[in-house]
Amino acid sequence: VPAQVLTAGAEPLTVDDVRVRATEMLPPELSDFLAGGAGAETTLAANRRALDQVAVVPRVLSGAAAADPGAGLLGGSSRLPLAVAPMAYHRLFHPAGETAVARAAAAAGVPFVVSTLSSTSLEELAGTGGERWFQLYWLRDDRETFELVHRAEQSGCRVLMVTADVPIMGRRLRDVRNRFALPPDVRAVNLRAGARSVAHDPGAGSALAAHTQAAFHPALSWAHLERLRDRTALPIVVKGILDPADAREAAARGMDAVVVSNHGGRQLDGAVAAAAALPGIVAAAGDRCQVLLDSGIRSGTDVLRAVALGAAGVLVGRPVLWGLAAGGEAGVTQVLSLLGDGLREAMRLAGCADLAAVRQLRTTVVS
Amino acid sequence: VPAQVLTAGAEPLTVDDVRVRATEMLPPELSDFLAGGAGAETTLAANRRALDQVAVVPRVLSGAAAADPGAGLLGGSSRLPLAVAPMAYHRLFHPAGETAVARAAAAAGVPFVVSTLSSTSLEELAGTGGERWFQLYWLRDDRETFELVHRAEQSGCRVLMVTADVPIMGRRLRDVRNRFALPPDVRAVNLRAGARSVAHDPGAGSALAAHTQAAFHPALSWAHLERLRDRTALPIVVKGILDPADAREAAARGMDAVVVSNHGGRQLDGAVAAAAALPGIVAAAGDRCQVLLDSGIRSGTDVLRAVALGAAGVLVGRPVLWGLAAGGEAGVTQVLSLLGDGLREAMRLAGCADLAAVRQLRTTVVS
Amino acid sequence: VPAQVLTAGAEPLTVDDVRVRATEMLPPELSDFLAGGAGAETTLAANRRALDQVAVVPRVLSGAAAADPGAGLLGGSSRLPLAVAPMAYHRLFHPAGETAVARAAAAAGVPFVVSTLSSTSLEELAGTGGERWFQLYWLRDDRETFELVHRAEQSGCRVLMVTADVPIMGRRLRDVRNRFALPPDVRAVNLRAGARSVAHDPGAGSALAAHTQAAFHPALSWAHLERLRDRTALPIVVKGILDPADAREAAARGMDAVVVSNHGGRQLDGAVAAAAALPGIVAAAGDRCQVLLDSGIRSGTDVLRAVALGAAGVLVGRPVLWGLAAGGEAGVTQVLSLLGDGLREAMRLAGCADLAAVRQLRTTVVS
Amino acid sequence: VPAQVLTAGAEPLTVDDVRVRATEMLPPELSDFLAGGAGAETTLAANRRALDQVAVVPRVLSGAAAADPGAGLLGGSSRLPLAVAPMAYHRLFHPAGETAVARAAAAAGVPFVVSTLSSTSLEELAGTGGERWFQLYWLRDDRETFELVHRAEQSGCRVLMVTADVPIMGRRLRDVRNRFALPPDVRAVNLRAGARSVAHDPGAGSALAAHTQAAFHPALSWAHLERLRDRTALPIVVKGILDPADAREAAARGMDAVVVSNHGGRQLDGAVAAAAALPGIVAAAGDRCQVLLDSGIRSGTDVLRAVALGAAGVLVGRPVLWGLAAGGEAGVTQVLSLLGDGLREAMRLAGCADLAAVRQLRTTVVS
Repeated sequence: VPAQVLTAGAEPLTVDDVRVRATEMLPPELSDFLAGGAGAETTLAANRRALDQVAVVPRVLSGAAAADPGAGLLGGSSRLPLAVAPMAYHRLFHPAGETAVARAAAAAGVPFVVSTLSSTSLEELAGTGGERWFQLYWLRDDRETFELVHRAEQSGCRVLMVTADVPIMGRRLRDVRNRFALPPDVRAVNLRAGARSVAHDPGAGSALAAHTQAAFHPALSWAHLERLRDRTALPIVVKGILDPADAREAAARGMDAVVVSNHGGRQLDGAVAAAAALPGIVAAAGDRCQVLLDSGIRSGTDVLRAVALGAAGVLVGRPVLWGLAAGGEAGVTQVLSLLGDGLREAMRLAGCADLAAVRQLRTTVVS
Repeated sequence: VPAQVLTAGAEPLTVDDVRVRATEMLPPELSDFLAGGAGAETTLAANRRALDQVAVVPRVLSGAAAADPGAGLLGGSSRLPLAVAPMAYHRLFHPAGETAVARAAAAAGVPFVVSTLSSTSLEELAGTGGERWFQLYWLRDDRETFELVHRAEQSGCRVLMVTADVPIMGRRLRDVRNRFALPPDVRAVNLRAGARSVAHDPGAGSALAAHTQAAFHPALSWAHLERLRDRTALPIVVKGILDPADAREAAARGMDAVVVSNHGGRQLDGAVAAAAALPGIVAAAGDRCQVLLDSGIRSGTDVLRAVALGAAGVLVGRPVLWGLAAGGEAGVTQVLSLLGDGLREAMRLAGCADLAAVRQLRTTVVS
Repeated sequence: VPAQVLTAGAEPLTVDDVRVRATEMLPPELSDFLAGGAGAETTLAANRRALDQVAVVPRVLSGAAAADPGAGLLGGSSRLPLAVAPMAYHRLFHPAGETAVARAAAAAGVPFVVSTLSSTSLEELAGTGGERWFQLYWLRDDRETFELVHRAEQSGCRVLMVTADVPIMGRRLRDVRNRFALPPDVRAVNLRAGARSVAHDPGAGSALAAHTQAAFHPALSWAHLERLRDRTALPIVVKGILDPADAREAAARGMDAVVVSNHGGRQLDGAVAAAAALPGIVAAAGDRCQVLLDSGIRSGTDVLRAVALGAAGVLVGRPVLWGLAAGGEAGVTQVLSLLGDGLREAMRLAGCADLAAVRQLRTTVVS
Repeated sequence: VPAQVLTAGAEPLTVDDVRVRATEMLPPELSDFLAGGAGAETTLAANRRALDQVAVVPRVLSGAAAADPGAGLLGGSSRLPLAVAPMAYHRLFHPAGETAVARAAAAAGVPFVVSTLSSTSLEELAGTGGERWFQLYWLRDDRETFELVHRAEQSGCRVLMVTADVPIMGRRLRDVRNRFALPPDVRAVNLRAGARSVAHDPGAGSALAAHTQAAFHPALSWAHLERLRDRTALPIVVKGILDPADAREAAARGMDAVVVSNHGGRQLDGAVAAAAALPGIVAAAGDRCQVLLDSGIRSGTDVLRAVALGAAGVLVGRPVLWGLAAGGEAGVTQVLSLLGDGLREAMRLAGCADLAAVRQLRTTVVS
């Protein structure tokens, strides 16, 4: 394994190198919080395995002299077919938190998705430049929910991404065993209740699960999304779709995109791998709304695989926070460079001048 | 593996945590007797693997605010789609034996299946409250068999479950190597011959195999079940069905349910995994009789998988006895809580308000 | 693994227990000679894996009170659907050699196949009772070949089994590395050239390979078998068939049976597993000639699997010689008992009164 | 594993034995350079696994007395259906470099493919006898490119093989981590720029990647091959084809052969295994141009597998350089002997007198 022979201080060559370094630097309960999944982590492992099983069939002699991975995502443009996935509490991993990540994303020319559980305010992030999207956890209080949407619009977020797969938080055993709780200085500052100390609560499994249960709407429905559709002109993305029927629902109700995701293996353990679900979603709704893939992307080859399977792009989560933990904004920049350079290299080697060509590549599933 | 990092004294978070604790507490020959399977334990391993290979496709935005796993099982109602599987000699694992397990099941609102080889009498268990079913090993002596059925009825058992897959006992090598024998104070008290000491008998492989051979009918047939059908008004369940043709036989002869089971890998080594056989049985007879799954259930996700594959519910065996060994009645309660809480969580995360919704979930088999 | 916990001196419970004991007792070059395969031993491993992948679907409530594994093999009858496979030089493993094995087979009521490379003469084996078959390596000298056939007939062999898969001997690297050679007192006594010392010959890979090359016909064809067909009234079995077209050839030319075999992984490394090839052979020619399976049988469950896949019976090789090495005639008896008892148990547990019922069992291939 | 028991000084029996010996003798950065692949080496491993999964179904009683693996390759004849793959800088591994390899290939009667990055000149190799082909990396400078072609023709190369899968060099992490650079005395002597020192360049990943980028045409197209087709009468082979559509393109434009190859896992990590792609290519274009297989061949059985899957022959790369490193020209001869002897043995054991018979063998894919 290349990462094992990485000499101390050497430049990381892969996302896995960055992960190793971040894991060395972080307290164990934080690297567990980041790396872990729900239950027996079956789905966490399946996400990775499903990507590894996708073999791509490259083309040759296309005459392409360069590869441009520029992508049209949700009506905008991105230098890469990827966005930084919404993730809670970046300041757990580095004092510069979401600000550092947003700056690195802006520099890389890719959208940054601000989480409802951001530890930096929407307004403060407006100063980071670049394209921002807002991820919405629908709250129990509709008024506060729409206030969040309004603040997102006002602070310049260009897309709304509604998370659909967290009626409750999945039970992440590492966090429960670690009695993981937020330190006092890291809070969900965009929420009214965010200032409340989030201590370990054995009954709820973990402090975050307790918070989720208290704050988030437990019975979200398509009707909620229709109301949101009526109240905003921004493109809406539904995150957490795995069944083709739900993708068709999203398209039928005017949603602009879906994210095929099992929340990185952190919600229903036993759920189908995201990459395994992707082709069915593309077939069901890919002509009516964009399809993004989330969960397990670790290299430019993985992005190539996702696009070859029909995705318009991917969300990248844990790698970004490993980069943040390992090197702050520079670490995130490094991770995004590794992914971007890797994708460009993979496109060149697959004979693809652009993503449209990637989408034409054949794939096979290796058992 | 989460269980490996379980600190001493910590609350168990999974059935596997309970298993580890029980294994530490039990003498090796007893934990082997409980955990082991027949022959090379191929089928034992296949049961688990077949469940792990079932990937579930969750739904989102259903608007369900809660999940009710209440199940109609054999005309009654259960708070969960599960029953405690019939298992011999609970008093091997704890002095409170079947009484403790029956009380915990009653408290959890799930049926408890009394084994023919119970180490506590049917009449004594009548005092534990809750729903009880009676598992019948057809004896060589028809009169004693029907006397058992009569006692089961009189003591309040609401369902009869006839075990069909033990014409002889499978050869369980761990028990033979351990020269496993019952201690003098643990007996099959409901049988006339139960008082007989069950010593190690090298010829028969193990003491239990010898007992089985001496006491049980070696050539059970559908005709026997028809006679039972004529003599009792209780619902009858046939346990140990793996071939769709046998499920059709059961339905055609008025049986109320079948249990898809290979006896937890303890009978024919090389038999098909129970979860792999389930869909074929459901397709063959699911519209005419209920189908339960037995063998390998270890988590709420496993119950979700079984129901998504078409089962009306499951039997849970070894986990209950691990709970009993680790903590008596409280340990069983803990195991049933883990399974119930896990199932409710899984249903919420899969967007299912009830089991009917679970049954509509798509599944895929991962290789 | 059960065998790992086998206490010294304990009764072996499985063929693997016997293998472990034999391996402890034999010089390494002999246990290698017995256990090894050709090349990278890919096919050797595949044979075992293909059997492990066969899951059997048992039946219940058939009313069968006992299981009779008696088989009609090549017009005769055998107490079990198995014969002792032809193997060279039994006296390498025990001074009593083929005599001990033939006696144990006779006592178990199963045919013993005398190898052309037997280290005991055909005539001497006539005194062992029981059914004997003769395995023929066609020699370069036709006259000596037919003389062998004549001696086999005269000494009471009831069936001729012609080996078709040894135009040359496969390169078995363990033997080459061990410079394996026959000791001076072990010879192929039925061959004129058998008295010749078979020393290590680096050029030919191993002493046995050299012998094979010198003595055996290198270009056997169906025409040879037709000539044999004309010269003997005995049933003829062709051993080493893997392609359905060859099975059809055999049937068309009046052969009575074929043995689906890759020579226990000792000839073409990379050849298809025998159990994987079996169903295609049965479909192609099973109605016109008997089909036996060879390669990898280690338990009664394996015999059940083979018959469920359509075989009339199996050949058992290495287990017999492990038994011989571990305990002489008694060791062979023990191995045959383990297989027979295991098969009877498996038939009972699968609800089969006889082999015809076994042949009706469903099977599935587990990946 | 046989290689593990190889005693020091013993004759190598397999290519893996030679690999072990070469690895012991080479500096780590050189054995890494030779053995490594791109990225996570997924494709490197997949190449091997895909070959291992091909099970061959041998035939028997064909009457063949010998096996002749003679092959018609690109209008010429070869004693084996293989050619030495084009590989850069043989003098890295032994001072005799390409000269030694070409002599060994000539002695074995198989074509030797001279690399554009040969460390020995085309003209010098003309003295080695035997059949030589020339592998062309199309250069940025067309004039130099055609000059190379002219020199190849003049020096007696009989076939041109154009590499199509290197628009850029794949990122080989072992080389980057090792800061691999060419020693000053090893150069691409056939290139004008070959004299330039090729030092480690962190920006380009490795010295060779930098060289590739500087010298090779980055946007090769079918139009280039058509121009080449017009300028030479030699047969043209396109190397690096994995998509059937590209094979059809090659055939349509008058190419004489394609090499199914992923560059030994050294270019696009995540690309389909070569052996997995082979049947589709044969089906698409095998009737109009020859199809060779490259990537992963390590034994005579592998060659048999490739031909049985429809290949006219294979290229062998790393094994040849392991042989060169371990023993100079004699080492290469040994490797070619192992492959040739292994193929002849495999053909005999599969009942095939010639490659046409091999091509008729059935194959199955083992999962």
